[in-house]
Amino acid sequence: MINTQMFRAKNGEITPEILAVAKREYRDAEDIRKEVAAGTICIPANINHKNLQPMGIGRSLTTKINANIGNSSLSSCPNTELKKLKQAVKYGADTVMDLSTGGNINVIRKTIIENSPVPIGTVPIYEALARIDSPNDLTDELILEVIQEQAEQGVDYMTIHAGLLREQIPLAKKRKLRIVSRGGSIMAKWMQDENRENPIFERFDDILKICAKYDVTLSLGDGMRPGCLADASDEAQFAELKVLGDLVRRCRAANVQSMVEGPGHIPFNEIEMNMKKEIELCDDAPFYILGPVVIDCAPGYDHYTSGIGATMGAYHGAAMLCYVTPKEHLGLPNSRDVRDGVIAYKIAAHAADVANKLPHAQDRDDAISDARAAFDWEEQFNLAIDPDKARELRAEAIEEQNMEVEDKSKHVKADGDDEHYCTMCGPNFCSMRISKEL
Amino acid sequence: MINTQMFRAKNGEITPEILAVAKREYRDAEDIRKEVAAGTICIPANINHKNLQPMGIGRSLTTKINANIGNSSLSSCPNTELKKLKQAVKYGADTVMDLSTGGNINVIRKTIIENSPVPIGTVPIYEALARIDSPNDLTDELILEVIQEQAEQGVDYMTIHAGLLREQIPLAKKRKLRIVSRGGSIMAKWMQDENRENPIFERFDDILKICAKYDVTLSLGDGMRPGCLADASDEAQFAELKVLGDLVRRCRAANVQSMVEGPGHIPFNEIEMNMKKEIELCDDAPFYILGPVVIDCAPGYDHYTSGIGATMGAYHGAAMLCYVTPKEHLGLPNSRDVRDGVIAYKIAAHAADVANKLPHAQDRDDAISDARAAFDWEEQFNLAIDPDKARELRAEAIEEQNMEVEDKSKHVKADGDDEHYCTMCGPNFCSMRISKEL
Repeated sequence: MINTQMFRAKNGEITPEILAVAKREYRDAEDIRKEVAAGTICIPANINHKNLQPMGIGRSLTTKINANIGNSSLSSCPNTELKKLKQAVKYGADTVMDLSTGGNINVIRKTIIENSPVPIGTVPIYEALARIDSPNDLTDELILEVIQEQAEQGVDYMTIHAGLLREQIPLAKKRKLRIVSRGGSIMAKWMQDENRENPIFERFDDILKICAKYDVTLSLGDGMRPGCLADASDEAQFAELKVLGDLVRRCRAANVQSMVEGPGHIPFNEIEMNMKKEIELCDDAPFYILGPVVIDCAPGYDHYTSGIGATMGAYHGAAMLCYVTPKEHLGLPNSRDVRDGVIAYKIAAHAADVANKLPHAQDRDDAISDARAAFDWEEQFNLAIDPDKARELRAEAIEEQNMEVEDKSKHVKADGDDEHYCTMCGPNFCSMRISKEL
Repeated sequence: MINTQMFRAKNGEITPEILAVAKREYRDAEDIRKEVAAGTICIPANINHKNLQPMGIGRSLTTKINANIGNSSLSSCPNTELKKLKQAVKYGADTVMDLSTGGNINVIRKTIIENSPVPIGTVPIYEALARIDSPNDLTDELILEVIQEQAEQGVDYMTIHAGLLREQIPLAKKRKLRIVSRGGSIMAKWMQDENRENPIFERFDDILKICAKYDVTLSLGDGMRPGCLADASDEAQFAELKVLGDLVRRCRAANVQSMVEGPGHIPFNEIEMNMKKEIELCDDAPFYILGPVVIDCAPGYDHYTSGIGATMGAYHGAAMLCYVTPKEHLGLPNSRDVRDGVIAYKIAAHAADVANKLPHAQDRDDAISDARAAFDWEEQFNLAIDPDKARELRAEAIEEQNMEVEDKSKHVKADGDDEHYCTMCGPNFCSMRISKEL
């Protein structure tokens, strides 16, 4: 049974989901329908995910961001993950991936799906691995079983590493960091140890059948994504990308929605080329990129090093950005890291949308500029991407200023939000006020 | 008397400063000499600034960053400013501007110059204003007096707003935020109230004489820099930039080194065009840009919104980046903000240098990638742009992991820096370790 947005779009139907996406994006519904039919826009919406607010992912739409949550092998509390979900959505994540690898995976995911207004993605191989003792015990039947269960449960999109083939492994061995994708490294090791081709590639048609039934969008994972600048844009990466393009075409033929995952670590000057290559090799399937990090030597700041790359990527066509947190390369993110990562990516996505002149993209910036001209602090906070942070820093500045005033006892204390200056130039030489008098 | 690097370079001399720059940049000294003679590289080095470590600013060199320090009208302690100087230099500022506007300006600046290994910049009009009661009391004689005193004291470069002319003021009135440069807004108000042309423009030849004597580099300020996306790349901005180009040519004729200051707030898609326009209108004088911020609606994160723009700017030719702190648009930065701003800009500059394939730019990234492959945590920290932050986040991740382990009492506690995984994938499924086994 085929029950997908793509199938219905191909048959000329403007589904409620297509209509919702068109409205949200200020676009014509018929245009969206055409792109869903062609596969250049996907709308991840599992038929069993109730309470989902439909959203679309595609180069012509606003840039979306994904936040990862999920437990490690060391914790197993659904409430902890539910809190992370709510925080990610509050700060603006458009989709959330549950990357749990620890205990209680099934219950955690059920709780997350039931409570999520945004599409939920998973990496089914993580659950498959949690069910066995050693990665070498992996079988194609187990992988299909997990995909079937997760699809039935309502997962909207799944990352599968179907494009990493045996013939690419020698290419990875030439690299400084070989394979940094967890799923990719496990599949490569399995193929080598078992002396067999990638089972996810070999059973791709069976996977397509499951996805067609529940309308699971396939996110074609890049197991060969480069893990450092030295490995960027190399043979291994592009050999896999070419296979991913073939898989996109197979998805479309089976009426299954798909997107393609991208790098990783790429120097700033190679990002445009990487985006164009995906459009060309994968027939403009929505490109879902991880950063990319543009330098390797700033651990602790990789939400930012990758946010620079993400902006450039989205400007040149990436459709969705997978966030990176400040803990990347150092450890698992905590709640503060999740917030920092989501905000960094909202900024990157918005910067690209403004640059690409998407409908109404700059409205919020123009409104906050008007609020600045009017010294309307409350309105500036309300329009900020992170109002809490803006309030906090403003309060800190006023407090520090007042401490200095107390030392001097010759200046008037700042009242806070009705001030007609921002403490940057001080009350006497506020450029905004002076130039208003022109 | 003409005593400048440019004058000597024009006469064929490879000065010790030129030699030092060539060595630092892995470049041929004769090439640097030619560019200093042509004015496409400047070496801000006042003859009275002892203990200066010479550095060059130009499109063909590594991207430099500037950090602003300086007191407000409410504080006046040289030690506070000295601490800020040391912090800025520690984290990697290539130049520091003292923007003091409060009391004790002269003593503060003297202390800073004596203690600074990096070039010091100022905005002389701030001190001029501090000496009078009202901006309308400003005279050209006072401005020249302050410039002379600061030059004699050893200031390496000075921002002067000579390019903002009367005829441009009507253009600014069309803007959402008019004039956001403090110096620019004051000069515009003065010109309008006094019904006179810009005195800094009118006395430009006298200023050049002072600069030639002490080798003060002129940083031609952009009083008309846009203060929001809505005002970006407009008539006012480019009318002033054209005048700045004329002033560059007058500087060069007088053997005075110069650079040009740039925006501000510019959407990501217009940055390349802005860089090219400066190269064209200002004959490739080193471009010293402030960000630019690429969206207006993220107060609290403008070190990052502007770092995105700064990377793009440096990639397309900007020579020096003036840092922006998280407090921008909210208040005066404190010591934490200075650190965050400097690090953000080190990252932007480095990302652009790697992208532009400058000699040895990627060495540090390749070395940290090797350390990652070897699980050598200590080496990773040492190679990090901010080792303190990397250590701190890693320690936090390990601590949080151990807390979970205590809850479970079934896993082995992490030892810290000799671990062969980073807690991201956990000990069982570390992609780096697994792919090493290939």
